Amino acid sequence: MSDRFIKGWKTMQQVGGKQSEDTIKRLESIAPGFGNHIVEYAFGDIFGRDGLDLKQRELVLIASLTTQGDCNSWLHLHINAGLNAGLRPKEIVEAIVQCSLPCGLPRVLNTMRIVNQVFKERKINPLD
Amino acid sequence: MSDRFIKGWKTMQQVGGKQSEDTIKRLESIAPGFGNHIVEYAFGDIFGRDGLDLKQRELVLIASLTTQGDCNSWLHLHINAGLNAGLRPKEIVEAIVQCSLPCGLPRVLNTMRIVNQVFKERKINPLD
Amino acid sequence: MSDRFIKGWKTMQQVGGKQSEDTIKRLESIAPGFGNHIVEYAFGDIFGRDGLDLKQRELVLIASLTTQGDCNSWLHLHINAGLNAGLRPKEIVEAIVQCSLPCGLPRVLNTMRIVNQVFKERKINPLD
Amino acid sequence: MSDRFIKGWKTMQQVGGKQSEDTIKRLESIAPGFGNHIVEYAFGDIFGRDGLDLKQRELVLIASLTTQGDCNSWLHLHINAGLNAGLRPKEIVEAIVQCSLPCGLPRVLNTMRIVNQVFKERKINPLD
Amino acid sequence: MSDRFIKGWKTMQQVGGKQSEDTIKRLESIAPGFGNHIVEYAFGDIFGRDGLDLKQRELVLIASLTTQGDCNSWLHLHINAGLNAGLRPKEIVEAIVQCSLPCGLPRVLNTMRIVNQVFKERKINPLD
Amino acid sequence: MSDRFIKGWKTMQQVGGKQSEDTIKRLESIAPGFGNHIVEYAFGDIFGRDGLDLKQRELVLIASLTTQGDCNSWLHLHINAGLNAGLRPKEIVEAIVQCSLPCGLPRVLNTMRIVNQVFKERKINPLD
Repeated sequence: MSDRFIKGWKTMQQVGGKQSEDTIKRLESIAPGFGNHIVEYAFGDIFGRDGLDLKQRELVLIASLTTQGDCNSWLHLHINAGLNAGLRPKEIVEAIVQCSLPCGLPRVLNTMRIVNQVFKERKINPLD
Repeated sequence: MSDRFIKGWKTMQQVGGKQSEDTIKRLESIAPGFGNHIVEYAFGDIFGRDGLDLKQRELVLIASLTTQGDCNSWLHLHINAGLNAGLRPKEIVEAIVQCSLPCGLPRVLNTMRIVNQVFKERKINPLD
Repeated sequence: MSDRFIKGWKTMQQVGGKQSEDTIKRLESIAPGFGNHIVEYAFGDIFGRDGLDLKQRELVLIASLTTQGDCNSWLHLHINAGLNAGLRPKEIVEAIVQCSLPCGLPRVLNTMRIVNQVFKERKINPLD
Repeated sequence: MSDRFIKGWKTMQQVGGKQSEDTIKRLESIAPGFGNHIVEYAFGDIFGRDGLDLKQRELVLIASLTTQGDCNSWLHLHINAGLNAGLRPKEIVEAIVQCSLPCGLPRVLNTMRIVNQVFKERKINPLD
Repeated sequence: MSDRFIKGWKTMQQVGGKQSEDTIKRLESIAPGFGNHIVEYAFGDIFGRDGLDLKQRELVLIASLTTQGDCNSWLHLHINAGLNAGLRPKEIVEAIVQCSLPCGLPRVLNTMRIVNQVFKERKINPLD
Repeated sequence: MSDRFIKGWKTMQQVGGKQSEDTIKRLESIAPGFGNHIVEYAFGDIFGRDGLDLKQRELVLIASLTTQGDCNSWLHLHINAGLNAGLRPKEIVEAIVQCSLPCGLPRVLNTMRIVNQVFKERKINPLD
């Protein structure tokens, strides 16, 4: 195992935990090597860069996934990852509200449904 | 002029300056009332909410506009707005790098061209 | 309650009924104030403008939501809203057929599945 | 020449005039047969269907092209086609305003720039 | 029945079998004529062109549907159609891996879930 | 320089030549390390995988970039790369024609304009 893999695996565990681990394993079974590339490149090289902390990176990902559409399971993962990284519930909600200006209401209301679900699962007070 | 308009106009001046003012005026000449709605709603109501500061809102907008595509003039405006709000050049660059995972390389490299242009116009050292 | 809110709430009831009311309430519980902004701005300011009647506005929304993708619950709502506003079933179907030229077949066939469902729920003859 | 082609060619002339004719010819020189398919299918079969008049079809196309993004030359063509078909300037503007709810501000403001250009070229009063 | 219809129907049976037949029939019941247009145009005219074989056409469709997003049922159909046309499982997987560069990871991982499902349904060894 | 970088650089030269080299250098000046990541990951790891040859990978990229929209400079690069890899002009044209079914006419006609330009620059007969 390369250093890049070990570094990436650690970040992946922190960001996506069991869900990401399962995704990578399933990927390796149909596209051998590609799952490992993602651990090394996405979680090792990219998440490992300086200049933004993990909270900011998750805020950016939530905005990007909201805008892209058809990303529900990824939004569920990264809303959780953002909370785990220390984002306040209110910061996540406001990032999504802000996206309504560039990307319109349907994308934003869809992500809000997922936020609502995550907050219930974690018994979070949305006004914190 | 409503309080919402005055509050929105002030934020709009801070975010988009002369460029936004011209957009609103041009808009009012073909869709009377719609430009004012945007000042009040987008810059007054939405930008005026608690929970995220202006730096974070601009970071979120840069991520969303990058992901959406076909938003060059808006990216130019909000990269400038982010710098004006106090984002470090490096934070803007890293937010765009992070978007490469959800939205792929063409969108990201396109925004990087605009970042490059803004940095040159403002004689900015990208490593700050 | 502002006049804008009262005007918007009335239009919202007409367009989306109980479903929109629930969306706004759920939104208010996680993003206080944002649900009310939408009532005032989207349903009050925008839907309340001159120049197009409600039938035309719903036709435009159905075309836009079809093109955007990943908007099923919104399409369900606005196909119903279009019928409530007086669009003939055939007009809705033809607007979607026309979208196949700019946006391709998958988006169009997806919306047709929702049209089919709405027509069954309302016991509508599609050829009317 | 088939009946479908003759019917399609006539509608194409009415909708896109010289610009569409040039597109089809250029297309035929690199993808022989495909330009003719489009005349027959898009302009003959689809535009030739019952249930919506040409004004409504153009309103739907303007909404769809605005939402899709990266369609400037097509928007220029269909804003002109809509006016030629008898849409009032105000109806076109309001269709685009309405799209801001599902598809956000950048797409809408981009189309408004093209509307502005077409209105100037045709010396149109936008408030008609 | 026109020659174009007969030719298209045959290709449609080969590509999408019973699922496409049902789609066309359902479509004909709400938009009479449009289902037949699709058989003639999409499966007759377009699939019937020279220059690419069916394997290549399906590879191109899988890449396009992956990139577009919100196309799960169509991806299921065309992954099956690609295998039926003689694409090796590994070729399909690699086409999707390649798309991760232009369109990012969520779209690609979503299609991989569908690939996984199709491979299980057909008891396919992904490394073939 | 790592083996991955050397392998990636070689493939990058073959695919995008001077244009890609310039993109990577410009990128390194504003996002140090990110350009190198792309050489290693995109051109080394991903393009270097088994299962598809370079011709097929370029066909897939052309389909994906066409579908995504707002990718003109990338389409110019990969249409050239496809021809360099040995794709026949007709294969490239037909891949784009096929995309009209999932992604509609504007995206397809836009790519055809770029195809036309590349064919003229290379004095290519489109019917080869």
